[in-house]
Amino acid sequence: MDEILTKKQEALIRSLQTRHGRKKSDLCLCEGIKSCKEILSINLQLIETAVCSEDFKSDDFSSVDFVKVTADKFQSLSSFSASEGILFIVKRPEFKVSGPLSDSFTILLDKVSDPGNLGTIIRTVRATGLGELWMTEGTVDPFCNKAIRAALASQFALQIRLFANLADAICEFRRIGSDRIYITNPHSGASCFTEAGLFDKSLIIFGNEAHGTENIHNIADLTIPMPGNIDSINVAQSVTVILFEAVRRKESN
Amino acid sequence: MDEILTKKQEALIRSLQTRHGRKKSDLCLCEGIKSCKEILSINLQLIETAVCSEDFKSDDFSSVDFVKVTADKFQSLSSFSASEGILFIVKRPEFKVSGPLSDSFTILLDKVSDPGNLGTIIRTVRATGLGELWMTEGTVDPFCNKAIRAALASQFALQIRLFANLADAICEFRRIGSDRIYITNPHSGASCFTEAGLFDKSLIIFGNEAHGTENIHNIADLTIPMPGNIDSINVAQSVTVILFEAVRRKESN
Repeated sequence: MDEILTKKQEALIRSLQTRHGRKKSDLCLCEGIKSCKEILSINLQLIETAVCSEDFKSDDFSSVDFVKVTADKFQSLSSFSASEGILFIVKRPEFKVSGPLSDSFTILLDKVSDPGNLGTIIRTVRATGLGELWMTEGTVDPFCNKAIRAALASQFALQIRLFANLADAICEFRRIGSDRIYITNPHSGASCFTEAGLFDKSLIIFGNEAHGTENIHNIADLTIPMPGNIDSINVAQSVTVILFEAVRRKESN
Repeated sequence: MDEILTKKQEALIRSLQTRHGRKKSDLCLCEGIKSCKEILSINLQLIETAVCSEDFKSDDFSSVDFVKVTADKFQSLSSFSASEGILFIVKRPEFKVSGPLSDSFTILLDKVSDPGNLGTIIRTVRATGLGELWMTEGTVDPFCNKAIRAALASQFALQIRLFANLADAICEFRRIGSDRIYITNPHSGASCFTEAGLFDKSLIIFGNEAHGTENIHNIADLTIPMPGNIDSINVAQSVTVILFEAVRRKESN
């Protein structure tokens, strides 16, 4: 009882490669074995349509009803240069708008623009056990194809809060969280390795790859010591250092 | 006394976009302001030819003799979708083949295949103050365009040693370094946050993105604790966690 991919479904898949198409439909594309497995483990109900190549074989997806297409057709639908023969059309989760904080500290990304960076950050946030991520408008879409691929679909397991701008996010954090707010700065500030209480109901802000963040009054600078002769590291690496410093402190307690 | 870009130079630039072209000439391409500035700060002698767009303006490159081309021509030579108007044809540094170790510990990449990952790792290695990086054949070319872009040309400041395979690298490290050798493993091993002597004349091995490393006898597993519900993190993130754990320990001494 294999179904046939309709023209409409095919057009939908192609449209979901574009930002405009995703916006119009509130759906997104999830490709590849690892990402699709992740969707399955998070919530089967997210899947709108599952498509696989006729030669796709895996025991991990027995609970899924697939629309099967020829290998050539599948490759033409895929954004992977060598497709893995599986893709899901997935409901786009809504951004969280209110409610109490779910973690002991919170990461806020301000206008991070590279989808690969954002996806990597999301995957690392999930790996370290946080349930929530904050971002401002101007940050790249966390449900675009490249971000989903880099995160291996971890974004579907996180609560993401989106704010109009940095000031709004800070204001909200002061209301529901605390006054302990840091902005990362490559050149000055307290060291992330020695700052006491760094992860104690705090908000830690990371800026855009090229331009950093705007100057905000009354917020503490936080820095990652860098002994090497270099101006800065990639924002995804900075977030990783901070996230794993939190893991380390927890482990050593 | 501006020079004109010859047909031969133009063909060379185009050929350097390909692996084959780089291999044939022992040259590579460095694009963009930050990367070109880095080359300048490392060694002016690396530059074979400097090309800029006629509308390019910067005070940082007054020591460089440019070949100027029209903005349209420059964009057609550039691999950036929005070029920054500056590129260098650069001599490809030779791999280091022998000599004493330059750092207190050493990172070995075994067949890391993504040029963005490799570039990010190289930039982070440099940021933490190491002078050397080891890799095995099968690792992507550290002087390909994407790796240079991701590293912002940091690879020109590092000594890179390349080995035919993992066994050869380990053998050489035992000869000139020590027996303290670790392989990172996402699931088991000593914690990188508590292992004593982790950075004491050690070699720390990171495997391929998808397949990890082959099993090697008598080498200790090292793991990065991950409280979240996820299988593994990106190899560039793993290297970053380890590198900054070394910085942290040094700072706290």
